[in-house]
Amino acid sequence: MTSFTLSATVPASYAETLARVRDLLGDAGFGVLTEIDLTATLHAKLGVDIPQQVILGACMPQLAHRALEADPRIATMLPCNVVVAAEGEETRMEIFDPAAMTSFSSDAGVAEVAADARQRLTGMLEALTGEKKDDDAARA
Amino acid sequence: MTSFTLSATVPASYAETLARVRDLLGDAGFGVLTEIDLTATLHAKLGVDIPQQVILGACMPQLAHRALEADPRIATMLPCNVVVAAEGEETRMEIFDPAAMTSFSSDAGVAEVAADARQRLTGMLEALTGEKKDDDAARA
Repeated sequence: MTSFTLSATVPASYAETLARVRDLLGDAGFGVLTEIDLTATLHAKLGVDIPQQVILGACMPQLAHRALEADPRIATMLPCNVVVAAEGEETRMEIFDPAAMTSFSSDAGVAEVAADARQRLTGMLEALTGEKKDDDAARA
Repeated sequence: MTSFTLSATVPASYAETLARVRDLLGDAGFGVLTEIDLTATLHAKLGVDIPQQVILGACMPQLAHRALEADPRIATMLPCNVVVAAEGEETRMEIFDPAAMTSFSSDAGVAEVAADARQRLTGMLEALTGEKKDDDAARA
């Protein structure tokens, strides 16, 4: 099965990690267009309780515009979801891997944008975890 | 290349179609958790002008919860994006095809949820266009 997320475990609390993710997304050129508090939503709608988890919809307008011009269907995969989830004392990150877009759209423009976005997001995960992800960097 | 959207052209104006989509999503059990006015966003950030286009983030909490329990990485593909875009006097619909999730996650629970969501969204497109999509119904 193809991997479709960039993931990492951050050795820091949920609140601390979420604050750093917001800063690092901004540094990497992304704005946060949407925000879904999954924990609050599932509690309100279903009465179930899951550990703290938020989906941030990250978007870099220049890249989004280029991708939409290359393949308008890419709108259905925007913004790029950055999931921050509490996992005990640590925090799990799952980011929709922009490279997964190339499983669906063969357009060269989409591939370029995906590679650019992927490099930025991989850099953010490296900054969060303090690890250089050599394999991912090579793939990007 | 795998198709990853459910798409249709609706012979009605953007405003009329958007209002109907909101109603039909509700009828099909989906709430709209996020909404991105792509036209306004690209105009504000880049000064470019594209025809009216909105991304509605549709979510059915019961299905989302089941999918997350089956494979937590699915959070990066939530909510399901329903794109409504003006195309002259008509309106183009592009919906992220829930079946595309099964390209990435082999979990049986994810497949069940994807099939359920797909059937609801296909039904909505049929209601919008007045056409029965036999091929899609058979695939779902």
